Amino acid sequence: MSEQTKALIKDAATQLFYANGFHGTSVRDIAKKAKVNQALISYYYGGKQALFESLVTEFFEGYVHTIETTLHACQDDATKALREIIERVLTYQQSCHLLARMAHREMTLDSTLVRELMSTYLRKEQYLLEQVVAGCMAQLKQNKLPVDLVVLQLRNMLILPYSSPQYLRELFLLTPADHLFTKRYVQHTQAWMKTVFQLPEKTPKSRLLHV
Amino acid sequence: MSEQTKALIKDAATQLFYANGFHGTSVRDIAKKAKVNQALISYYYGGKQALFESLVTEFFEGYVHTIETTLHACQDDATKALREIIERVLTYQQSCHLLARMAHREMTLDSTLVRELMSTYLRKEQYLLEQVVAGCMAQLKQNKLPVDLVVLQLRNMLILPYSSPQYLRELFLLTPADHLFTKRYVQHTQAWMKTVFQLPEKTPKSRLLHV
Repeated sequence: MSEQTKALIKDAATQLFYANGFHGTSVRDIAKKAKVNQALISYYYGGKQALFESLVTEFFEGYVHTIETTLHACQDDATKALREIIERVLTYQQSCHLLARMAHREMTLDSTLVRELMSTYLRKEQYLLEQVVAGCMAQLKQNKLPVDLVVLQLRNMLILPYSSPQYLRELFLLTPADHLFTKRYVQHTQAWMKTVFQLPEKTPKSRLLHV
Repeated sequence: MSEQTKALIKDAATQLFYANGFHGTSVRDIAKKAKVNQALISYYYGGKQALFESLVTEFFEGYVHTIETTLHACQDDATKALREIIERVLTYQQSCHLLARMAHREMTLDSTLVRELMSTYLRKEQYLLEQVVAGCMAQLKQNKLPVDLVVLQLRNMLILPYSSPQYLRELFLLTPADHLFTKRYVQHTQAWMKTVFQLPEKTPKSRLLHV
């Protein structure tokens, strides 16, 4: 019962924080939307700031966990690991797209929370992506580009649909929250991967928009 | 005299909007920092919202203008045009780094202003970058990647130092506002360009951090 209540609170809070921002959302709004007693929010989370932080932290925990478990599952094949990481991270974000968007938007600010999230989750993300990129380069005997530049590009591609959803929507008429978009975008990031690592296979030539 | 006053107002407003956000800044704060009479701000700009919009608009005007004039100046050589666009756009943003950061942060919101800026400046940016990327592909007989994916990557690289400055600072110990950073980052984006278009020259192998 309490897990169910917590899920209702988290769901309502994500929708409201996403739509109205942190300052535009009150604990009362969240309680009303979740149809729970306002006191329960304080009981479970200790308040609005703590609830918000727990949502964003949970997102990055899942995000880094996805990369880590995938990397461990494909330890002997870096190229396969990278391909799987791209697909699973995009699928993970799509499964919680409002939260993903809210979390990436938060990271554009300059706050204590952001610095904490960076020094824990994003430093770990960077480390894991460096491992897999360096692994691919060793496996494919390709080292034309510096590892850190490839990591930056890779990271940008992974978060793009959720860090710049309006840009994709307005200029490419794409809807990143859509399941079909994720499928198509995965193919395109894998085309990118083939170019960067100069894999021999033929890459798809279709545009993002027209399959 | 009036141009000088306007410059003082813009300078003070950029610093305050950047540090404290739109809602955390008042016309009074701006007037005080610029050492001008508060009434002059209303006289020149018509208020805080209009001043903010004029700053962001001016940034994107300069941004698109930089791409456009560079493309026209190198009309016969797409590869040269792309190389120059990367360098000049990064130099332009570095020359007004607070404003650049403020403008890119604004674009993560979902507002009427953002939609207007997208449908004018960013649509034009997209068109111009598509021209130059397609030109490079034709010139180098290389069409492994779809144009729109390369445009997205290129755009991400161009804005990254100002859209994610904290990320670069915290995880790579880099300071995007620094002149030396821009110089180094230009070299790295050109290494990216060589890989994407499979140019024959040797690419630098150094890391972003250690030259």
